[in-house]
Amino acid sequence: MPKLPLIPRLISETRTGAASWHPTTITHVALAAGLVALLILTVEPVYAQGRMWIELVLWLCLVVFIWEWLVRLYYSRTHHGVMGYLTTAGGVIDTASALAVPIALACGVTTKSAWLFGAIWLLKLAPQLTSLKLLRRVIVVEAGPLASVLAIFLLVLFVASTLVHVLERDEQPDVFGSVPATLWWAVATLTTTGYGDVVPHTPLGRLVAAIVMVCGLFIFGLWTGIIATGFAAENRRQNFIKTWEYVSKVPFFGRLAPGAITDVTQMLRRLDLPPKAIVVRRGAIGDCMYFIASGAVEVELPDKRVRLGEGAFFGELALLGNNIRTANVVTKETSTLLVLDLVDFRLLMARHPELSKVIDAEATRRMQENLRGGPPQ
Amino acid sequence: MPKLPLIPRLISETRTGAASWHPTTITHVALAAGLVALLILTVEPVYAQGRMWIELVLWLCLVVFIWEWLVRLYYSRTHHGVMGYLTTAGGVIDTASALAVPIALACGVTTKSAWLFGAIWLLKLAPQLTSLKLLRRVIVVEAGPLASVLAIFLLVLFVASTLVHVLERDEQPDVFGSVPATLWWAVATLTTTGYGDVVPHTPLGRLVAAIVMVCGLFIFGLWTGIIATGFAAENRRQNFIKTWEYVSKVPFFGRLAPGAITDVTQMLRRLDLPPKAIVVRRGAIGDCMYFIASGAVEVELPDKRVRLGEGAFFGELALLGNNIRTANVVTKETSTLLVLDLVDFRLLMARHPELSKVIDAEATRRMQENLRGGPPQ
Amino acid sequence: MPKLPLIPRLISETRTGAASWHPTTITHVALAAGLVALLILTVEPVYAQGRMWIELVLWLCLVVFIWEWLVRLYYSRTHHGVMGYLTTAGGVIDTASALAVPIALACGVTTKSAWLFGAIWLLKLAPQLTSLKLLRRVIVVEAGPLASVLAIFLLVLFVASTLVHVLERDEQPDVFGSVPATLWWAVATLTTTGYGDVVPHTPLGRLVAAIVMVCGLFIFGLWTGIIATGFAAENRRQNFIKTWEYVSKVPFFGRLAPGAITDVTQMLRRLDLPPKAIVVRRGAIGDCMYFIASGAVEVELPDKRVRLGEGAFFGELALLGNNIRTANVVTKETSTLLVLDLVDFRLLMARHPELSKVIDAEATRRMQENLRGGPPQ
Amino acid sequence: MPKLPLIPRLISETRTGAASWHPTTITHVALAAGLVALLILTVEPVYAQGRMWIELVLWLCLVVFIWEWLVRLYYSRTHHGVMGYLTTAGGVIDTASALAVPIALACGVTTKSAWLFGAIWLLKLAPQLTSLKLLRRVIVVEAGPLASVLAIFLLVLFVASTLVHVLERDEQPDVFGSVPATLWWAVATLTTTGYGDVVPHTPLGRLVAAIVMVCGLFIFGLWTGIIATGFAAENRRQNFIKTWEYVSKVPFFGRLAPGAITDVTQMLRRLDLPPKAIVVRRGAIGDCMYFIASGAVEVELPDKRVRLGEGAFFGELALLGNNIRTANVVTKETSTLLVLDLVDFRLLMARHPELSKVIDAEATRRMQENLRGGPPQ
Repeated sequence: MPKLPLIPRLISETRTGAASWHPTTITHVALAAGLVALLILTVEPVYAQGRMWIELVLWLCLVVFIWEWLVRLYYSRTHHGVMGYLTTAGGVIDTASALAVPIALACGVTTKSAWLFGAIWLLKLAPQLTSLKLLRRVIVVEAGPLASVLAIFLLVLFVASTLVHVLERDEQPDVFGSVPATLWWAVATLTTTGYGDVVPHTPLGRLVAAIVMVCGLFIFGLWTGIIATGFAAENRRQNFIKTWEYVSKVPFFGRLAPGAITDVTQMLRRLDLPPKAIVVRRGAIGDCMYFIASGAVEVELPDKRVRLGEGAFFGELALLGNNIRTANVVTKETSTLLVLDLVDFRLLMARHPELSKVIDAEATRRMQENLRGGPPQ
Repeated sequence: MPKLPLIPRLISETRTGAASWHPTTITHVALAAGLVALLILTVEPVYAQGRMWIELVLWLCLVVFIWEWLVRLYYSRTHHGVMGYLTTAGGVIDTASALAVPIALACGVTTKSAWLFGAIWLLKLAPQLTSLKLLRRVIVVEAGPLASVLAIFLLVLFVASTLVHVLERDEQPDVFGSVPATLWWAVATLTTTGYGDVVPHTPLGRLVAAIVMVCGLFIFGLWTGIIATGFAAENRRQNFIKTWEYVSKVPFFGRLAPGAITDVTQMLRRLDLPPKAIVVRRGAIGDCMYFIASGAVEVELPDKRVRLGEGAFFGELALLGNNIRTANVVTKETSTLLVLDLVDFRLLMARHPELSKVIDAEATRRMQENLRGGPPQ
Repeated sequence: MPKLPLIPRLISETRTGAASWHPTTITHVALAAGLVALLILTVEPVYAQGRMWIELVLWLCLVVFIWEWLVRLYYSRTHHGVMGYLTTAGGVIDTASALAVPIALACGVTTKSAWLFGAIWLLKLAPQLTSLKLLRRVIVVEAGPLASVLAIFLLVLFVASTLVHVLERDEQPDVFGSVPATLWWAVATLTTTGYGDVVPHTPLGRLVAAIVMVCGLFIFGLWTGIIATGFAAENRRQNFIKTWEYVSKVPFFGRLAPGAITDVTQMLRRLDLPPKAIVVRRGAIGDCMYFIASGAVEVELPDKRVRLGEGAFFGELALLGNNIRTANVVTKETSTLLVLDLVDFRLLMARHPELSKVIDAEATRRMQENLRGGPPQ
Repeated sequence: MPKLPLIPRLISETRTGAASWHPTTITHVALAAGLVALLILTVEPVYAQGRMWIELVLWLCLVVFIWEWLVRLYYSRTHHGVMGYLTTAGGVIDTASALAVPIALACGVTTKSAWLFGAIWLLKLAPQLTSLKLLRRVIVVEAGPLASVLAIFLLVLFVASTLVHVLERDEQPDVFGSVPATLWWAVATLTTTGYGDVVPHTPLGRLVAAIVMVCGLFIFGLWTGIIATGFAAENRRQNFIKTWEYVSKVPFFGRLAPGAITDVTQMLRRLDLPPKAIVVRRGAIGDCMYFIASGAVEVELPDKRVRLGEGAFFGELALLGNNIRTANVVTKETSTLLVLDLVDFRLLMARHPELSKVIDAEATRRMQENLRGGPPQ
């Protein structure tokens, strides 16, 4: 059974259990159906007409999530322990998804309001977002500067609110009559949202508002700069770690010196492709070569089709002068390719001249093989 | 016939065909005229007065686009096959441009509404935007992180909508009465657009709104960071590939070691100039030198004019100490120059000392030649 | 007594004085209580009910800040001199915090308005924000470009205001009747806040408004770009300086060549952890190793617990091929760890092959020690 | 007479002429006075009271700008030629500043409206913004991508306007009745300004609006990314060129190899200081050293004061281990210092070990000199 990265916890638990069908699909269907039902639940005319069906869908979704929760609880008993499961973020979300609506109903909340707790179900998607980890790491690594920006944000917010309250309270006592009320105006202004429901009227109040807007741009600029810097660094790091795993599977790279392997790992780009995807189109202009990290491709030559498997590479002629692709290349199964761009190839060559010899030797061997009918392009 | 980069497909198809005039111009004129006609079509008083003329222009435009579509269909039969043309993005846009209005008219849509389908014509510009490819690649390469940010965006959107719906439905049943209605408020707030037509009134609703605004800034910061990172990397790559082509045409670079060529290619900036453009102005302060990748320039010396063609270079004295330009240099035809800045030149010198000798030798030769009346600086 | 980085001035002054309790906590409590009291002071119904309590809290806060100011004044007399204290940013804020409310009350301002000067108290937090220095340096270093962007901002603001005033004054004399009034519209538009309380109605006025909005995006883009660039550079610099201090405490790095030390310092990430924090979890996938710069950790082996102190390192197996963590590692006290990521380790190895030998030797020694019962993982 | 970088044209022209006073100051005073007069000109009550004075100021300003224009015209006749002056950006602005108001008055425009053409005077500041050149270069270098983003912006604008016009014209014929009217809504939405004066009401219209908002964020992200990338590159380049000039004046750098000079030039930060500025404060923690590129500083030792002139350096002990500053250093005149940070110093040391010897030798010589009473710190 292949590894499923999305909800490995449920999979690994049901692997040995009674459930023979695929739980991921069920969860996703229940989430989608539940989301639609929740959206139309609150639209009065639609709800009046289809009340029975909407509630039926919601009850079914709830049953799925409760069942999912119970299965995971049961299996976690034998693996990480029940508390180990319940204290993870996923466990908390699962528990809340299963219990929030029944508890609300039991507490006497009206049916419609109780079902709105189903919005918690959406959080089940959060652990499945693969890049969320990356974003969380950016926040952790850049926590110091981000906290400072947030503190400046709050400082400007409170000081501006007090000032504008003093300047505007006589003019507009309804909306600027207290500092907490003025905070509403300040947050909408500092984030440059600018609803316009509350607007200062006095010249001095407007001067403060103008300064707050410019501060908003400055704070936002800092914010973006910090996140952008952190993201670029973290992305590079994550890419290296993932690509490193694949590089070890390609025998070609084994011949390089350790320094060259590190450099090449930094430059390779991963490409995950479904089956039957066209990687290279005949006649197109090529500017990169491909290494097969996993899966297989088929080269469609005029006279025959050649299959290339894990560890093979193709498209290297594009980097050696002949940049018109000579054959279509199509994936045969879900494949992960490593792409080496022309610019990176040239940089590698300049830094590691021995690489040039290895690629040239391979290309020559390929061409001869090609003449004799081997793997082409 | 020169290569026209904008709509090479139509050109290459009509090259052998009956059309003797220039189709690019026709398409552009039709697009501009059609756009103006579409804009004033909906302005009631103008339309009432000039109805006949406006419709005449629109019909003429439609005829041009249908003709263009038919020509391309006819020629694609002999080249890529009709389906090959119809399944490309350009083919789909061409087909929709040609057929949308006639089909709408045939279906009984009112004249005015039917012509509004002419907005599709504007999409014909999309394949002509040369940098659009670059932007598309950025999206493809950064698809994972961008999808995650979009998912966070949607998650915050739905959860915030449900929360604010619950908090505000009693206060403002008209605008927060259902979750789908609240979504409208949420999307305007999360993107910091802030129309202000729908605004929470309860303190808790405003607290959630404030959190949504700050989330909006955070999501937007991530978004910008990802795109900025991806764009910088992709831009560097595209520049290298395009510059590499030109570098191979300049004999001067042929004398350098492969490592130096790669470095120099990364540092050169391309400059596309029309004829009669002033490249260097006498008396100005120079901080770069120029290599002619294609085209030709004329050096305007006090006593004579010297023509420099493909592969020549000029302005090198600015990098060797004398930074006052001694002559005007003007392009004689559409030219592509490669610009080497002072800072990059110094970096190159530091990394590849042999380059220094080559440039010095050239400069000395130039000056002697100059004394004897050769090409100057 | 350990050094407290937050308000070292007060601490160092009271160290020799009479005060035996902790002044930082008092200040923070007073700030929090004062902030809450200031917020509810202006909410009429709450104030009417709890007036006595609110004013009591505010008076207490004021007493704390006046006391703090007097203590610092007294001690500064013996250290930096009274003027030296009063001319620093902190001294100005302390003085204003202590005197603003009493002076306002003495001048006959109403009680409620006088207390609003307490908003100055919040500024006491500013010197405590450790990253604020970093942000200030970014502004200083990028002052030139930032001033230019601000000048462009003001230029567009005034020219657009004059234009829109001329175009809209007849249509809406109330809001566009003078250039200063129009400035209010212009600043809300240029910062893309867009309140919508003042909106041009004439076609030409709207055209100018549209151009102003696009200029706003451009100015904002520049602004963000400048700050992001400056922040990335400054952050790198600050990190280096702080990390450098810690690197000198780890004996392992003393064996490296100076070039390698500089490289390693740039790559290490600092991690400040409280006691009992789990650094490494058994069974997790490791992608970094840790050096202990200060503090101590405990390795929880199945059969025993091993304590590692300052200068030790752990988790190196993750970088040498075995990426499953074999033991839990927990901090025993407040610790600062230096983290070396897999990607940076590989880069270091490529640039400084001697490092590889040092780490390998250490790992081998560790494993043998481990077999004999020494520090594990 | 020293070079004045701001308006060298006027200066160099009047150098030989009759004007003995300083024209820059006059222009700046006239600009400031004119701006204030223009602002209050349109405020009815103020204008009614002080009409005579406001108009007097405006006439005086106009006389200054006309005089300035005539002086420049007169001198340009002998230098670059009248047309050479009139075709530069500065010449066009000068001409418009001098002639716009008189021509408007001559054409019979009302006095108040005619004076509003004085807003053109503000453009005189544009050529004085030193960083404006940098920003212009960023736009030139990144013209391709920026144009693409602008094209996408316009494409989305027109297609969204047509769509929303069709969806909303029956609901709100007043504001969405024509495509040009809808464009106003579209531009306010796409730039995330969101006035809220015009808002779609139909569900489909709101869906399109939501997509437009997200497109706005995407376009804005791209925009910021492009400008940030371009700005960082251009800034680095400009800094190198300016710093390079100064590095050649410091004899210390002359001893380094060319590669080290290039590296050091990239790392130095310029610092322009007025006279009597405190560069280094005794007792502070130092993390950089200073080279004097121009001007002079005074080191305030306990027993004497030592003057250091052009080419000298100080503060090097901070980079060699002793990071507590031992003396105050104050500028004696307007000075330009080159700052070398600790991190960059370490990087330089690692790359160019010979640099270490030079600095060490200097530091040793300094200390001995210091013991004998020479330049300290």
